[in-house]
Amino acid sequence: MKKNLRIQSGAAREYKSLKMLVALVSLVVFTPGYSSPGNNSPPAADLTPAVDPFLGVDGGGNTLPGPYLPFGMVRVGPDCGNLRSNSGYTGGPVMGFSQVHISGSGGGAKYGNVLFRPTVGELDVQKPAGNRKSESATVGLYDTTLDSGVRVELSASRRAGFHRYTYPKGTQGHVVLDLGSVLSMYENAGEGQTVLATETRILAPDTVQGRVIVQGGWNIGAPYTVYFSAKLNRQPEESGVWGPVGIYPGCTRGVTTVKEHGGAFFSFDTAQDNQVLLKIGISYINCEKARQNRDEEIPQWDFDQVVSDNRAAWNRELGRITLEGATGDQQRMFYTALYHIFSMPTDRTGDNPLWTSPEPYYDDFFALWDTYRSSFPLFALIAPSRSSHIIRSLVDTYRHEGWMPEARSGNDNGRVQGTTSGDFLIADAILKGVEGIDYQAAYQAMRKNAEVPTGPCDQRFFGRGNVDVFHQLGYIPADCERSGSRTVDYAVNDFAVAQVAAKLGKTEDAGKYAKSSKNWRNGWQADKEDDGVKGFIMPRNRDGSFVDVSPTQAPMVATDRKDPYVAWSQHPSHPGGSGSEPNIYYEGNSWIYSLAAHHDVAGLIELCGGKDKFLQRLDTYFAKYHQCENEPGFFSHCLYVYAGRPDKTAEATRKICARFNPGRSGIPGNDDSGAMSSWLAFNMMGFYPNVGQDIYIITAPQLPKVVIHLENGKDFTIIAKGVSDKNIYVASATLNGHPLDRPWFRHSEIANGGTLEFQMSDQPTDWGCNNLPPSTVSLPGRS
Amino acid sequence: MKKNLRIQSGAAREYKSLKMLVALVSLVVFTPGYSSPGNNSPPAADLTPAVDPFLGVDGGGNTLPGPYLPFGMVRVGPDCGNLRSNSGYTGGPVMGFSQVHISGSGGGAKYGNVLFRPTVGELDVQKPAGNRKSESATVGLYDTTLDSGVRVELSASRRAGFHRYTYPKGTQGHVVLDLGSVLSMYENAGEGQTVLATETRILAPDTVQGRVIVQGGWNIGAPYTVYFSAKLNRQPEESGVWGPVGIYPGCTRGVTTVKEHGGAFFSFDTAQDNQVLLKIGISYINCEKARQNRDEEIPQWDFDQVVSDNRAAWNRELGRITLEGATGDQQRMFYTALYHIFSMPTDRTGDNPLWTSPEPYYDDFFALWDTYRSSFPLFALIAPSRSSHIIRSLVDTYRHEGWMPEARSGNDNGRVQGTTSGDFLIADAILKGVEGIDYQAAYQAMRKNAEVPTGPCDQRFFGRGNVDVFHQLGYIPADCERSGSRTVDYAVNDFAVAQVAAKLGKTEDAGKYAKSSKNWRNGWQADKEDDGVKGFIMPRNRDGSFVDVSPTQAPMVATDRKDPYVAWSQHPSHPGGSGSEPNIYYEGNSWIYSLAAHHDVAGLIELCGGKDKFLQRLDTYFAKYHQCENEPGFFSHCLYVYAGRPDKTAEATRKICARFNPGRSGIPGNDDSGAMSSWLAFNMMGFYPNVGQDIYIITAPQLPKVVIHLENGKDFTIIAKGVSDKNIYVASATLNGHPLDRPWFRHSEIANGGTLEFQMSDQPTDWGCNNLPPSTVSLPGRS
Repeated sequence: MKKNLRIQSGAAREYKSLKMLVALVSLVVFTPGYSSPGNNSPPAADLTPAVDPFLGVDGGGNTLPGPYLPFGMVRVGPDCGNLRSNSGYTGGPVMGFSQVHISGSGGGAKYGNVLFRPTVGELDVQKPAGNRKSESATVGLYDTTLDSGVRVELSASRRAGFHRYTYPKGTQGHVVLDLGSVLSMYENAGEGQTVLATETRILAPDTVQGRVIVQGGWNIGAPYTVYFSAKLNRQPEESGVWGPVGIYPGCTRGVTTVKEHGGAFFSFDTAQDNQVLLKIGISYINCEKARQNRDEEIPQWDFDQVVSDNRAAWNRELGRITLEGATGDQQRMFYTALYHIFSMPTDRTGDNPLWTSPEPYYDDFFALWDTYRSSFPLFALIAPSRSSHIIRSLVDTYRHEGWMPEARSGNDNGRVQGTTSGDFLIADAILKGVEGIDYQAAYQAMRKNAEVPTGPCDQRFFGRGNVDVFHQLGYIPADCERSGSRTVDYAVNDFAVAQVAAKLGKTEDAGKYAKSSKNWRNGWQADKEDDGVKGFIMPRNRDGSFVDVSPTQAPMVATDRKDPYVAWSQHPSHPGGSGSEPNIYYEGNSWIYSLAAHHDVAGLIELCGGKDKFLQRLDTYFAKYHQCENEPGFFSHCLYVYAGRPDKTAEATRKICARFNPGRSGIPGNDDSGAMSSWLAFNMMGFYPNVGQDIYIITAPQLPKVVIHLENGKDFTIIAKGVSDKNIYVASATLNGHPLDRPWFRHSEIANGGTLEFQMSDQPTDWGCNNLPPSTVSLPGRS
Repeated sequence: MKKNLRIQSGAAREYKSLKMLVALVSLVVFTPGYSSPGNNSPPAADLTPAVDPFLGVDGGGNTLPGPYLPFGMVRVGPDCGNLRSNSGYTGGPVMGFSQVHISGSGGGAKYGNVLFRPTVGELDVQKPAGNRKSESATVGLYDTTLDSGVRVELSASRRAGFHRYTYPKGTQGHVVLDLGSVLSMYENAGEGQTVLATETRILAPDTVQGRVIVQGGWNIGAPYTVYFSAKLNRQPEESGVWGPVGIYPGCTRGVTTVKEHGGAFFSFDTAQDNQVLLKIGISYINCEKARQNRDEEIPQWDFDQVVSDNRAAWNRELGRITLEGATGDQQRMFYTALYHIFSMPTDRTGDNPLWTSPEPYYDDFFALWDTYRSSFPLFALIAPSRSSHIIRSLVDTYRHEGWMPEARSGNDNGRVQGTTSGDFLIADAILKGVEGIDYQAAYQAMRKNAEVPTGPCDQRFFGRGNVDVFHQLGYIPADCERSGSRTVDYAVNDFAVAQVAAKLGKTEDAGKYAKSSKNWRNGWQADKEDDGVKGFIMPRNRDGSFVDVSPTQAPMVATDRKDPYVAWSQHPSHPGGSGSEPNIYYEGNSWIYSLAAHHDVAGLIELCGGKDKFLQRLDTYFAKYHQCENEPGFFSHCLYVYAGRPDKTAEATRKICARFNPGRSGIPGNDDSGAMSSWLAFNMMGFYPNVGQDIYIITAPQLPKVVIHLENGKDFTIIAKGVSDKNIYVASATLNGHPLDRPWFRHSEIANGGTLEFQMSDQPTDWGCNNLPPSTVSLPGRS
């Protein structure tokens, strides 16, 4: 999911593409301790210094620099400026520090709830916390000193935030709760959040609890309620509540209504003791649960211990992969990528307000459309227990709500960008032997996705809109929204369904969906030409005729605006409707979607006019039309391999990787819940998954040595001898000592560990040119 | 709690005062079967025909004619006209039938949630259900036929509504859910309710669930959320959702935002089968709980069985008292009064969204200020197990929120009208031996009420505002709101605290609060004269001087408008603030509050200048100033007894009772959650409690024979020989065969049953004139 404007505007961004290449040859090697290869227990040493929480905060990456645990329910951070930022983080004044965020999203912001701010001097509840004089962030700790002189340190457990405020001695110090603050406020017409109401209760001089009810945000979800219970480590001299009209010292109850700000304040004499600690438990069930979450996770007042516990938890995730010989920048980019990948979605197990279940519960799939291609294949490889945990939650949501999430946030499904991407997670999991999932129930959910069309309102929230028409006509006709992209998406999706059906012995279904997985070809207009290339996915009318649109554009379908949901969403009183859904191609154009049938590459090469024309098309595409910042093109650098040119895949990979850097603008576009980071992590290691298949494409390694400590206790080691910024091509390879003359391997070949060793070269070689990856059809005429 | 305008306006109402007196001599005796006297098990016969659900629906009684169980969480009913009515019920078109109501409230309306309406013809989701061609209501069943030809029958279990719609055969029949409909909508400036958002989910063709989030209503509470899960008995031909802009057939998800209407529709072909049944489970926790509530309570589709079960439950409550020889009107008035008394508050045990507890949970104390005087003393006498259950809930709310409810609705405390009336329930309970209550914890809650003042915002929601000033100055000064009434209220309240302290052996506290219970005298301006009477409770400045206001008015204190809460509540963006709180006397004036010290009547008589002047004052008061429709005067008819004139109490009682009648306008003012009904029930039986004491005043019986089947298995029988509309005076009395020459008795005298027998006379007698009830001080000079 991305802010849709970006594609069309191609807004300038700060790229430091050379920085990484330079770093590769640096002699200064940053070396945090590794766990020994073969040691699959949690690493003894601390990998967290390799993570830079500021990587990707700028330039549209929208990553959150504040502290949180892997998949943590609470993510603390500064909310800055006009609160329009997706992570809350920007330059400008800090309004305060809220407890709930997501990391790396695009579109309208979500969350930014339960904001506290320390201020000094005469009480002014509306005053921002102030500008930052200095700031730093490490895993588990955000630390800033404000121009007010207050130092703010933030840490987090899974469901509680921990703040430490150090005031200038002798000032009047305040802790102000602004419960009416959320990110992207008041943007009713689009994807903004609207605070519907807040409730504040000071239960004791050192204890405040309450809730905020919020509607909107990117997924245009139903209202969500965040409950909190906060405790101070000392008694304030004075406290009270405040609202839109005044401040009420001595009062303990405050309620505000739509778009109002309000909350509580606590004032301290800092002459003797100038430090105030604040623990804030969060829940989506009620305040009592928020209090329990707080007290269970942070029973003491030891701030440093919470930071330390946070880092220990991160080391358990980061330590799944260890690097040897990597430069400091490489380590920073790789481990920060892992950090981002293990940030999302949000594990809300035990805190589901909607139903009671023994199954896990995850929220903030933001969106699976972004993460199914590379984040989840990475989980399936390095953290299958997490993959299983998350997929079980998807299936349980299907059980209780009737549909698996495609995207989900604030306890509500929505929005759907392409197709039902959760299906790919299940296909990937079953093909890669992920255990603990009720695959029969999962298949029921997939089959419903593939068969039951969702209506005009529903289609943006779950399921596949017009999937009945897709089966009838063999494509999504041009009068339906997203006709160009969904014709391809649904076909690719059906391939995943077919895979699972086959695995479960449902032969008839497997045949049916294998057949419809070819439907993307029905959208192919063979004689459409653009920039020397012939044949494009084009919108098609119900009578079979094609609609003439430019392959470089993402135009809207005029007739589509009659969609009743669009009419509703455009009503002045109603939020929503500003997304890319009415476009023919969702977050892309025909150049991109014409190369998106990654399940049927042989067929694609054929339609493109054979290998040579395909290669020529890819060259033009990468020279001019590839958008590395959007997910529909995520697999396209692998396509060269299918046409016998691993060397060109290596070049394309390096070229795309150069769009990343270890700086604050280090991610070329929204990180999309770690989707971009997972693309980078895979390709730095040297391979990339074809999601929904048992296949990884070797894109050529960039790190000298990578050891993946698999959950089964085995290690999968990748060695790239001689790799450098010049030696980017594979000259030869061995797998477990045996020559490997193909640019791909199966999951089953490395599932029990092993060593993949490359000899790198500074010149293209013919390695792997003749042993091409399987596609779903035979490829006639391959040389 | 009353709509405050009523006092000031004295609006004309329909009274049928003669009807009851005429009915008394009617020879046609309506005789439902009774349980045998002495039989304390549930009555074998059906008492429910004596209940008229239409009694009190008009003329401001605001009782709900729709079906519900005793203290039921669901109360079903038609919501009519402009939805401004408190019960939803008025003439005019029926908008639909919603599931949650309260009965007999004043002020701004609350609830009216989850409204369904059957319609016919072309689908128009906005169209009201229509006008009523006919309508009837009995216990457990509301039955109307609309001008559309649709017959609607409604019944209810504790947490689920059951609807049966019979359509004209062959029409297109629809069931429309309007989740955005609530009572008293959009009155933001006052005490109206605002729908913040709704969510609708059609989970299966015959199943819809969702929620509505509502802010406001009389208690200006924090937002509450009503969840529902509804099931149809058959599959519709078509269904969909609708919103403010359109209708979306085939869609299953609908979300609306502030003040929008929306929901779902289900369309049926009625050619073959023209009946549709609908079960609607309600919960305040989530939709899953709503579904459980529905399926546990109404597992089948047997509508008549639900009606029958409802009546059986009511018979268990109504059968606590049996009558002999009563006229049909008397029976109707008496049993309908019991019906109203056992309607409120709402038993939400097991459905508390705020905390988990083994204790009961009640909501909709609307308000204890109304019901503490007579409803709860009646429970303590005839249903002490219910009294215990409710008081445990008050104490548990104190444990979790810090304060006992005074009023409470929508899971939120507020508003406070006078003092902390819950204290009286506890005093009454401990004095009358109600078991199962943690009286130590209860006393902690009482003591907090008596000691910890609530600030300017808080004081309208819980606790006693300015109680510190009350203890410092001995009165509430005139610059505080409600100074006139709260000076008296707090003193009376402290008497109750003293009673409990004494009972628990807390001698020091008992002494302290006995002393402050005299503080009402500090508000007495001895030389203030009005209408020939001298001495009134007057607002008093902090320097001790009195403020000159008319004893017949309920003026506001000008300075009080500076109260920051008032400023907030008057802000255009904020609901609330239209109540009587800024008045010097809450729902009354000085004539009324000057007689309100029912715990210190001896002192009152003394301040009034002795017995004769007191009697003269009472005569003037009842001739001109008594307001039977507001609770501050509820005990005043008993005051004659304290001055040795039981005959005048009998006359006043009959005079007030004549304001009631068995018709639709049968209650002279808001029933106030059964407060008015409980006043009537006591006085028809012939006695009335002095709440917070072990004392009942004999006000003279009106029914020939009453048998109270006490929970301990004993019967307390009251026989009034010769009673008629003329024979209103007691000539003589016996208790268990022994002469009783006093116009009062103690609870302990009848707690184990017994027989109180009166010989009635048509002339005043000197019975009981010389054996006066105890007061808290000796009464010198009594003749």
